[in-house]
Amino acid sequence: MSVTAASGFVASGVRCGIRKSRPDLAVVRSVAPATGAAMFTANRMQAAPVKISREHLELAEPQAVVVNSGVANAATGARGELTARASAAEAARLLGLDADEVLVLSTGVIGEQLPLDKIFTGLDAAVADLSRHGGEAAAQAILTTDTRPKEATAGGSGFVVGGMAKGSGMIHPNLATMLAVVTTDYALEPGEALEFLRPAVEASFNSISVDGECSTNDAVVLLANGASGAPRDDDAFAEGLHAVCEDLASQIVADGEGATFLAQISVRGAASDAEAKAIARRIATSPLVKTALFGRDPNWGRVLAAAGSAPFNGGYANLDPDRVTLDFDGVRVLAAGAPQPVDPALAGSGCSIRLDLGLGEGTASYLTSDLSYDYVRINADYRS
Amino acid sequence: MSVTAASGFVASGVRCGIRKSRPDLAVVRSVAPATGAAMFTANRMQAAPVKISREHLELAEPQAVVVNSGVANAATGARGELTARASAAEAARLLGLDADEVLVLSTGVIGEQLPLDKIFTGLDAAVADLSRHGGEAAAQAILTTDTRPKEATAGGSGFVVGGMAKGSGMIHPNLATMLAVVTTDYALEPGEALEFLRPAVEASFNSISVDGECSTNDAVVLLANGASGAPRDDDAFAEGLHAVCEDLASQIVADGEGATFLAQISVRGAASDAEAKAIARRIATSPLVKTALFGRDPNWGRVLAAAGSAPFNGGYANLDPDRVTLDFDGVRVLAAGAPQPVDPALAGSGCSIRLDLGLGEGTASYLTSDLSYDYVRINADYRS
Repeated sequence: MSVTAASGFVASGVRCGIRKSRPDLAVVRSVAPATGAAMFTANRMQAAPVKISREHLELAEPQAVVVNSGVANAATGARGELTARASAAEAARLLGLDADEVLVLSTGVIGEQLPLDKIFTGLDAAVADLSRHGGEAAAQAILTTDTRPKEATAGGSGFVVGGMAKGSGMIHPNLATMLAVVTTDYALEPGEALEFLRPAVEASFNSISVDGECSTNDAVVLLANGASGAPRDDDAFAEGLHAVCEDLASQIVADGEGATFLAQISVRGAASDAEAKAIARRIATSPLVKTALFGRDPNWGRVLAAAGSAPFNGGYANLDPDRVTLDFDGVRVLAAGAPQPVDPALAGSGCSIRLDLGLGEGTASYLTSDLSYDYVRINADYRS
Repeated sequence: MSVTAASGFVASGVRCGIRKSRPDLAVVRSVAPATGAAMFTANRMQAAPVKISREHLELAEPQAVVVNSGVANAATGARGELTARASAAEAARLLGLDADEVLVLSTGVIGEQLPLDKIFTGLDAAVADLSRHGGEAAAQAILTTDTRPKEATAGGSGFVVGGMAKGSGMIHPNLATMLAVVTTDYALEPGEALEFLRPAVEASFNSISVDGECSTNDAVVLLANGASGAPRDDDAFAEGLHAVCEDLASQIVADGEGATFLAQISVRGAASDAEAKAIARRIATSPLVKTALFGRDPNWGRVLAAAGSAPFNGGYANLDPDRVTLDFDGVRVLAAGAPQPVDPALAGSGCSIRLDLGLGEGTASYLTSDLSYDYVRINADYRS
């Protein structure tokens, strides 16, 4: 159900022919007037659909989302923008909406134009297929190198939050993308959606790393239609939204290219939250830390060296080697800079790495995966 | 000859017993009064010898350098600083110098104390062995996971620049380090050495990437003793110094862990040199670009996506997708944002990647290696 778990949402997923033999076009629509927001990739190489969707969000409240897989419509110039606009306009016509009320997302190969004829034909079928039971088909149609669909739901006092996502690296071999569409029947006023979405994304999708890259097409969309009629309880909604985003983000990391082992990195005691985040991110994206995880090696030296070289404000984040305390899976390997005579074993599907800098109150966490032979194989074998 | 190629320098390399069966202690000394400078790792986790050598450089002109391999003397607290100081003091006593005139460098395992008894015994032998012919032995004694020693020389009008280096990743499995000692018989005034060293290091050691990390012990030292008696020709000296640093840096990349293919990345047309460097570095350290190189895939999409997400001043470096021109080995794959109908073949030992952003006058270059199965094997198998 996922993206259609909340009341008043319908979805579908069909095969329009961009991909050889897999569904490749999804539509999600609110049947009650909705408000919404989206967050997009920070990459300067923004794909055409990102540009067009940004424009639409400035002009109207989003009521529907069209997602295609197979072609990212990135690095496609003015014609790429035209096809993105035309996709939104045709979906809007079929759905009885204004073009500005439709967001378009794409994921797949870069540098190829979107085949508009296939999109148009597919939209006919996708709109005809829209139903309360279409969430799963939609979740399937947005996948690229993913090995499984990603769906999540959370309930609150009378309302539901549901979502779907795709992504098996922060960026895929084909430069496909981390995409998520989250829907809720909780009621939000216009303009409020972004206030809720931003912290939820920061703590979830922006706190995962498979390979430290952000793609040309990354996007997270939230639609809220108030169809539940539930009374406002903003804390409960924030919690539900956070839970769905975190669940989807974890599924992306667990489906990471070649991932065999996960690490939950927690940094505390940093000079600021921003510095804690910079350090957590540096550890999470270090190829040396990630290969050590693949070898199940609690290599605290690599963790420290990564932490000590976390870019921050044009220099490096603050760290005092004599104050650093580090735990692997709850076993203290370093206490205020002093190595401890322990050798924790890493086993199972993942571990926790907790770093206390002893400097201040800043905290952050990051979920990462190991760097395995299969990561190299998947990404070296793929041809552009 | 390398580090003893210039007049007035002697060196030696001996086995002091830190490592099981390889030479592990090197001494380089100027026999004529020298001036010098050093640049060290920017990592906040600085090893004890880095701290002590920095102090010594503030107090005196360096006349000798002691380098040990096997133990990095990093994350070793106050006792580690004591052993670094004691090593310098004992070497100074044997060499008839002040302790402040000796720099100490270490590379090897992190979190272990330097065995001072072995260092002392080794220093006796190393000082006794000092000779004009000791450059090669010194270059051998500083290696860790390197598969071969790195030496380089360049001549100018009457003077010589020579050097040795170690490093097979920017950081090694055992957190060992990129180290270089460069000597010259060109005459410099006190305080001048750093002016020449800084741009040479920026264009060489700071423009290579094996895995994008900087270690706890990275250091480059320059000693100049004027023993050639050659007249000043600063342009020629700068050129010779640059050539030696670049040669050593290239040898480090070529000996990178598991490296099978090199890429010379050139960025021009950036809004500034600093932005060009940020973009070149981002491309050079991207795991997706590096796995594509391993697969000999001229994957311009990955290059663009990396370029578009180059961290700069808290945001991303400027890039306009519609102005980007990209060449692989001289073949234009993207012209002002438009993909070209070409498919260049990558073969041999390396390629060039030239990116023109079409925005300004900023330029930078970076040398990188691919990310192979062997990188993962070497770094996953090594135990801390």
